[in-house]
Amino acid sequence: MAIVTIVGAGLMGSAVAYPLADNGHSVRLVGTHLDGEIIQSCKENGYHPRLKRDLPAGVRPFFIEELTGALEGAEIIVSGVNSLGVHWIGETLAPHVHPGHTIIAITKGLEVDAQGELVILPDVVRGLLPAGVREQVNYAAVGGPCIAGELAGKRHSLVIFGSREAETAEKLASSFRTPYYHVWTTTDLVGLEMCAALKNAYTLGVGLATGLLEKSGGVDPSGAHMYNLSAGLFATATHEIERMLAVAGVERSFAYGLPGAGDLYVTCVGGRTIRFGTLLGKGIPFGEARQIMAGETLESIEIIRVMAAAIPQLERRGLLGKDELPFMRALIEIVVHGTPVDLPLETFFGRG
Amino acid sequence: MAIVTIVGAGLMGSAVAYPLADNGHSVRLVGTHLDGEIIQSCKENGYHPRLKRDLPAGVRPFFIEELTGALEGAEIIVSGVNSLGVHWIGETLAPHVHPGHTIIAITKGLEVDAQGELVILPDVVRGLLPAGVREQVNYAAVGGPCIAGELAGKRHSLVIFGSREAETAEKLASSFRTPYYHVWTTTDLVGLEMCAALKNAYTLGVGLATGLLEKSGGVDPSGAHMYNLSAGLFATATHEIERMLAVAGVERSFAYGLPGAGDLYVTCVGGRTIRFGTLLGKGIPFGEARQIMAGETLESIEIIRVMAAAIPQLERRGLLGKDELPFMRALIEIVVHGTPVDLPLETFFGRG
Repeated sequence: MAIVTIVGAGLMGSAVAYPLADNGHSVRLVGTHLDGEIIQSCKENGYHPRLKRDLPAGVRPFFIEELTGALEGAEIIVSGVNSLGVHWIGETLAPHVHPGHTIIAITKGLEVDAQGELVILPDVVRGLLPAGVREQVNYAAVGGPCIAGELAGKRHSLVIFGSREAETAEKLASSFRTPYYHVWTTTDLVGLEMCAALKNAYTLGVGLATGLLEKSGGVDPSGAHMYNLSAGLFATATHEIERMLAVAGVERSFAYGLPGAGDLYVTCVGGRTIRFGTLLGKGIPFGEARQIMAGETLESIEIIRVMAAAIPQLERRGLLGKDELPFMRALIEIVVHGTPVDLPLETFFGRG
Repeated sequence: MAIVTIVGAGLMGSAVAYPLADNGHSVRLVGTHLDGEIIQSCKENGYHPRLKRDLPAGVRPFFIEELTGALEGAEIIVSGVNSLGVHWIGETLAPHVHPGHTIIAITKGLEVDAQGELVILPDVVRGLLPAGVREQVNYAAVGGPCIAGELAGKRHSLVIFGSREAETAEKLASSFRTPYYHVWTTTDLVGLEMCAALKNAYTLGVGLATGLLEKSGGVDPSGAHMYNLSAGLFATATHEIERMLAVAGVERSFAYGLPGAGDLYVTCVGGRTIRFGTLLGKGIPFGEARQIMAGETLESIEIIRVMAAAIPQLERRGLLGKDELPFMRALIEIVVHGTPVDLPLETFFGRG
């Protein structure tokens, strides 16, 4: 049994405490500076107000000011912040990380560097750790469909752990795996993280259909929804995810596995990303829609911005044709340039 | 402009009359012996009672007894019956078909021959036509996500027409394509039809999750559904569809395109297949569940039975390993052998 320290006491960071505790690990849950009230509640009565559940017995809550103690003796560090906190967590962990540590990120996102190269978040964290240490730390991440509240409720969840070292992925999987938390492994960390990021962007796109339905007056008197369009957009999304995986030279089968189709499906079932897409589909301009959802983290927007920066570089390097990824390009128009929603359906699937 | 005769006045057969009429074709809609009341209504007042819409102006309804006249001069015949009617339609059309005719099936299903070979439905129809004529008829089929009521309501629908002859597929696509009916083409008729069939079987499987949720007492007090499981099963489905396409040596990209992921998605959104899966997931034995839904066509059951017959042959020929397609095998247990629902999640994705 290991000491596992989770940094970030939001929904997903806290949810992984449940399988870890069930496996008998010593689990420490550290709130960020944004999680003060959550940790206060956990300390007072063991109740996690966002998960709306009691923490598993034995999980110890810590304020961020107590981080040093919380990391003492830890073998596994879970990075449980959202993608906007990835630089913060890299800098925060830097003084504490030592050789042999394993850092597993549940963060999902992508960044783009000055040369237009896509960078996965575990590599962003890596870059923020001290030279000499960073090479001796194991990095991993989680992909696949997993709503935090369901994991905490011990509902069946099928996920995939990725690490460039097979041994790290396998070891982590054994630590986390329970009869309800089903964990597969891969060494294709980049492919896994690309899916996790891209699916957010495309969920926004699938959400447009719901908004377009509302704009058109809703379900018509004969009962017609716009599920055909949603499903067509869903398929365009998995198709373009596969294309991006091919461009990156990573595991293309993820497109029709847990990290691609599976994670896209669960994100499309509900939540803030699909809601934001719906607002845009209704015809609400981007800026206004963003204000309506002020205060909510919308990773989809960041991913689309990252793709807007990356695509010209991919084209310049001859990796992507001008007529490829038409759906993503349409999302860029809407999100980055604020143009009204007008999906060029005829150009999808390589019709050009 | 062509004369197009649709045989079968159910939902989907009738729905394709809308884009055809919009394109100025002369459209004739022939009811089967089961569609008498529908045709009666259409003749009396132009209203299609199942679609709950007026037929497009100019579409002429025919009783089955008027088939000969309805086929006179027709260039394109649409086979609009469900998969259980495919033998009937082959035999019914046999005396009327002549060289140069194009038959496009909206029927979805698969059959298995005495040797355990999978046979797509256009080939079943072909086999029923007179020798000497059958070689001179063009066959095609439709894949991709398309709820009939939405197509009739002129909602955007993204579909794919398949024919072994590229020219046939392209010509048909031009005849049907409208600003709301977006048609791609493929020469991989077998891959297209396999997806159309398999997605039905797997939708039943995804529906199990909803039933398992109900069986467990429903959404828990903290709000946890079982979407993680649904999404995990969805991804397992697309993954196994890809595997079957590979085994058949056909277009594997359909798994993450309109015929696979797209059609599976729209079928999972609602309808009788997902409802039947839900009954089974709740723990209702197969026979009882079938009785609850008596009178409803459940193509999923037929497909699962076909796969039960085909899998041993595929294994014998060395095309499929004993540990492959674990989800389909679980569905066969439930549907063919009537065993209680118990999904071997740990064996999915090649974990064996």
